[in-house]
Amino acid sequence: MEHEVLGKLRAAMKQAGHDALVAFSQDNVTYTAGFLVPSQASNRFRRTITIIARDRFAAQIVVNVEENLARQRSRFGDIRSYNQFTQDPADVLADTLQEAGVAAGRIAIELDYMPAQDYIRLKERLPKATFVPCKDLYFGARMIKTDAEVALLRKVGELTDRVAGEVLREIKPGMTEKAVAQIITNKMMDGGCDGLKVQVGSGIRSGITNCTPTDKKIERGDVVRVEILGDMSQYRSNVTRTAVVGEPTDEQKKIWDVMIGSREACKALLKPGLAVADLYRTYVKYLTERNIEPTLKFLGHGIGQTIHEEPYITDTRTIVMAPNITFTMEPLYMIPGRMGFHVEDMYLITRDGFAPVTGMITPNDELIRIG
Amino acid sequence: MEHEVLGKLRAAMKQAGHDALVAFSQDNVTYTAGFLVPSQASNRFRRTITIIARDRFAAQIVVNVEENLARQRSRFGDIRSYNQFTQDPADVLADTLQEAGVAAGRIAIELDYMPAQDYIRLKERLPKATFVPCKDLYFGARMIKTDAEVALLRKVGELTDRVAGEVLREIKPGMTEKAVAQIITNKMMDGGCDGLKVQVGSGIRSGITNCTPTDKKIERGDVVRVEILGDMSQYRSNVTRTAVVGEPTDEQKKIWDVMIGSREACKALLKPGLAVADLYRTYVKYLTERNIEPTLKFLGHGIGQTIHEEPYITDTRTIVMAPNITFTMEPLYMIPGRMGFHVEDMYLITRDGFAPVTGMITPNDELIRIG
Repeated sequence: MEHEVLGKLRAAMKQAGHDALVAFSQDNVTYTAGFLVPSQASNRFRRTITIIARDRFAAQIVVNVEENLARQRSRFGDIRSYNQFTQDPADVLADTLQEAGVAAGRIAIELDYMPAQDYIRLKERLPKATFVPCKDLYFGARMIKTDAEVALLRKVGELTDRVAGEVLREIKPGMTEKAVAQIITNKMMDGGCDGLKVQVGSGIRSGITNCTPTDKKIERGDVVRVEILGDMSQYRSNVTRTAVVGEPTDEQKKIWDVMIGSREACKALLKPGLAVADLYRTYVKYLTERNIEPTLKFLGHGIGQTIHEEPYITDTRTIVMAPNITFTMEPLYMIPGRMGFHVEDMYLITRDGFAPVTGMITPNDELIRIG
Repeated sequence: MEHEVLGKLRAAMKQAGHDALVAFSQDNVTYTAGFLVPSQASNRFRRTITIIARDRFAAQIVVNVEENLARQRSRFGDIRSYNQFTQDPADVLADTLQEAGVAAGRIAIELDYMPAQDYIRLKERLPKATFVPCKDLYFGARMIKTDAEVALLRKVGELTDRVAGEVLREIKPGMTEKAVAQIITNKMMDGGCDGLKVQVGSGIRSGITNCTPTDKKIERGDVVRVEILGDMSQYRSNVTRTAVVGEPTDEQKKIWDVMIGSREACKALLKPGLAVADLYRTYVKYLTERNIEPTLKFLGHGIGQTIHEEPYITDTRTIVMAPNITFTMEPLYMIPGRMGFHVEDMYLITRDGFAPVTGMITPNDELIRIG
């Protein structure tokens, strides 16, 4: 029996009229093969490629130094390898597609990721093939999680929620942003994470969207924004909290009430059948009616093996919510040079509504007080 | 005055007869702009692009959510942004190249990294332009470090060397590979790292080249291989040590003596003018004369903003050593299903020889004894 994920991708491939489906990116390859090839993450020249074709064909191409590991861990039984210095992986791919009988077929391939050089070589080698994008096919398949994937997302989400709550109680004025990030890192790794990213912005730095922690000390009156992006068994979490050192000002309280109000208005709509564009419009309407211009052009994003995936909650998407979609909502308002406000949690669409994945431990309904 | 790195790239571009030089990859963009755009690392759809053209033109393209940060941190004064959902960054690039006056020029661009889709779009938009690879130009410029880069590599290298030594003294039989990895992570972050990767393989898992730590307990008789890859201010370290729990067997001692002997034979050759191919051949000869077949087809690799860069120490390269080249040498021998041996340190070529960057604190001349 083919693995559930391979079967799902093969069915989507056939339904779209493709003869083969080829992935190059770390996220799509990991999703397909069921494990991360370590050096794919650290060395962009060590291409890893998965190929699904026709009714039965399935193979994975890895750099030779990863061949042993791939034989142990991959969902693919057919592992092919190349020497990084003497062979072109695009040639191994061309040979593989030929062997699969699709040299003149319609090949759905990651044009939005595969290097131009590999594309040029593949067109030379397979002049009769047609190459079409597979971005939507992959994101469509990945958007609806299997129950096993939901369980993994709950696990990393709950840890992240707990750590966010704990760290906000431990911050003291005078600590640096980097010290806060390190407490988070230790707690997340203790909790079983394989890796993570942490953003900490305090004072005017809270108004920078992606804010790498610095040696800046957290001071009285600072707004402090903490974003945690966890990684456990290749599944991700994303939780953001905002706090104030001391008493919030009236302006800060007012902005925060709008953030939380928009979040609650959006939560009230969550169920299968909801168009993500309508969800986004509800958010924008709520903010603009209260004289706040949304900083970002989306309210949130799907989450799974990558931090950002479909559905993006924005009016440029026609996606409709369905059971087992996992995503974040992140009301956010940045006032550059002054301060920033941001609350982000993970949600799951269920058969008849939704379930929060995070936000039970530190709901952040009010600005958290530090010191 | 243009920054030293931009000046160096512009000179190399002109010398090669190119009208423009365009980078897409995280490592080349970070090298050029002098800072990492955070979401480039986490979201492959948020392209970041640097453009240097003709005598004066210099611009960076970032996703709009990173625009504020780029204005604060980039070496480029001209920052252009795009909306991820409504604009194609390849169009912004085409407009920028047009404005730079090179629409019909010879454009050196990362064909080995830029997505096929952007290449297809750029050819449509600039039909008179010629696109050529820039991989060698970039790796050539990056290979010779500035003094500021050498100082950063020494800093992260020394920390990694110290942590490797400390952790090997703290391992006790019964600890899991993951626990060892966590001790390393804490020490490296305490020491000022921004991130790291750790590989720990024990028992037969020491024979897997890239070995993600598991819950396997370290037991009596195990060979333990620990590899640390640090990241501090965007510069990398790479140190590997091998230990044995209890007394090494005669076979293990014999293999290890060959590893260390090959390393010393290679160190004796290090100075400007040495061909890396000759260095590699010395290593292979040393091993094969002692009946050990080298597991990998290279002895080491350049190290800087990426773990692996030029010069690769292999006979497929024609590079000759020069002052301020930084690299690793990593004698390695894997016996799949049994055990693996691996010692890796960082080196710097100086005016008249070399200086070790790591290896002073834990030279690993003998197999380290645990327990």
